[in-house]
Amino acid sequence: MIHQSEFTVRTGGRGMHEVTAEVGRAVSDSGVRIGLATVFVHHTSASLTFCENADPDVRRDLETVFARLAPDGDAELRHRTEGPDDMPAHVRSVLTRTSVTLPVADGRCDLGTWQGLYLWEHRARGHARRISVTVVGE
Amino acid sequence: MIHQSEFTVRTGGRGMHEVTAEVGRAVSDSGVRIGLATVFVHHTSASLTFCENADPDVRRDLETVFARLAPDGDAELRHRTEGPDDMPAHVRSVLTRTSVTLPVADGRCDLGTWQGLYLWEHRARGHARRISVTVVGE
Amino acid sequence: MIHQSEFTVRTGGRGMHEVTAEVGRAVSDSGVRIGLATVFVHHTSASLTFCENADPDVRRDLETVFARLAPDGDAELRHRTEGPDDMPAHVRSVLTRTSVTLPVADGRCDLGTWQGLYLWEHRARGHARRISVTVVGE
Repeated sequence: MIHQSEFTVRTGGRGMHEVTAEVGRAVSDSGVRIGLATVFVHHTSASLTFCENADPDVRRDLETVFARLAPDGDAELRHRTEGPDDMPAHVRSVLTRTSVTLPVADGRCDLGTWQGLYLWEHRARGHARRISVTVVGE
Repeated sequence: MIHQSEFTVRTGGRGMHEVTAEVGRAVSDSGVRIGLATVFVHHTSASLTFCENADPDVRRDLETVFARLAPDGDAELRHRTEGPDDMPAHVRSVLTRTSVTLPVADGRCDLGTWQGLYLWEHRARGHARRISVTVVGE
Repeated sequence: MIHQSEFTVRTGGRGMHEVTAEVGRAVSDSGVRIGLATVFVHHTSASLTFCENADPDVRRDLETVFARLAPDGDAELRHRTEGPDDMPAHVRSVLTRTSVTLPVADGRCDLGTWQGLYLWEHRARGHARRISVTVVGE
């Protein structure tokens, strides 16, 4: 049994947007009770990451760390077609994930207690981000 | 054909624990001859990574590099609910993998010669880490 | 329906090699119209990454950033069995991806407009890199 669906997240610029509920809905709609769900973001300047969803400071701290790993306006980088945050957005995407696959059990996403899935917008301004969910199972 | 199982690794604190054999057992138990195995860690302060399994210095060096990328007690980070290694553990998890999917061929994990799969405990003290394996195939 | 195939990329040393077309061919050969394709690299010193495939400066800039994150000849690292680029290659592999799973729709890889999949050779000299593609679907 295979079920494919998609949704769009309209971001307001750099930051993390929880999509656990949207993915859970796609799994529920699929009718699959046991199997796998693959979430895929169809862009190279936004990405996916699992993150603790209890304390919002965790997301703030992740921004702090990634701003060091890939600072905007880095003078050694050449690709700045769309501005000083263009190439750092690609670096952040490469360091995180474009696709994640999670287990489906009892008809729902089998995640840890405080484990949420986030779309991470890496560009300074907002974008419409297309995300697809493919559920395989029985 | 879908087969789902899980196991727990009791870690003794920060470090890498090879789980290649446990995943191989789950694949063998599934009866799948050709397909895919998705390994998933149900936590956000431990993660999965593929790593050379010949020279233990590789794991030691990975700790050295990740201690630079995400040092314990980093003064700029706010989330320290569970101590100075709390937020760095989340950063290490984000920089590595929560789920990996590997090919199954001839009824076993089709890995490279020195390619092992590791659970990486990122917290200073030990934890019980839940890992699930979902095998899909024929 | 499950279809497994593989191909080899002969690299000329460190750098990124687009494999989007090879993966597309494997998907096309599988006959799967809707489903998932998992690409896996059977090595720990080369990896996979999604990257913008329009401006080659993006790949050049990624090399610049990763040369900072994991510099060759790093004096604090011990594993240098195969030279000063040996351990940095493992670090680069851990920071990127060994397996990626992408959606298949209408019989082809459903990627974003400028989203390409790359094999990233992390060793200084060239190697033959084995990549497998497992397609699951209908």
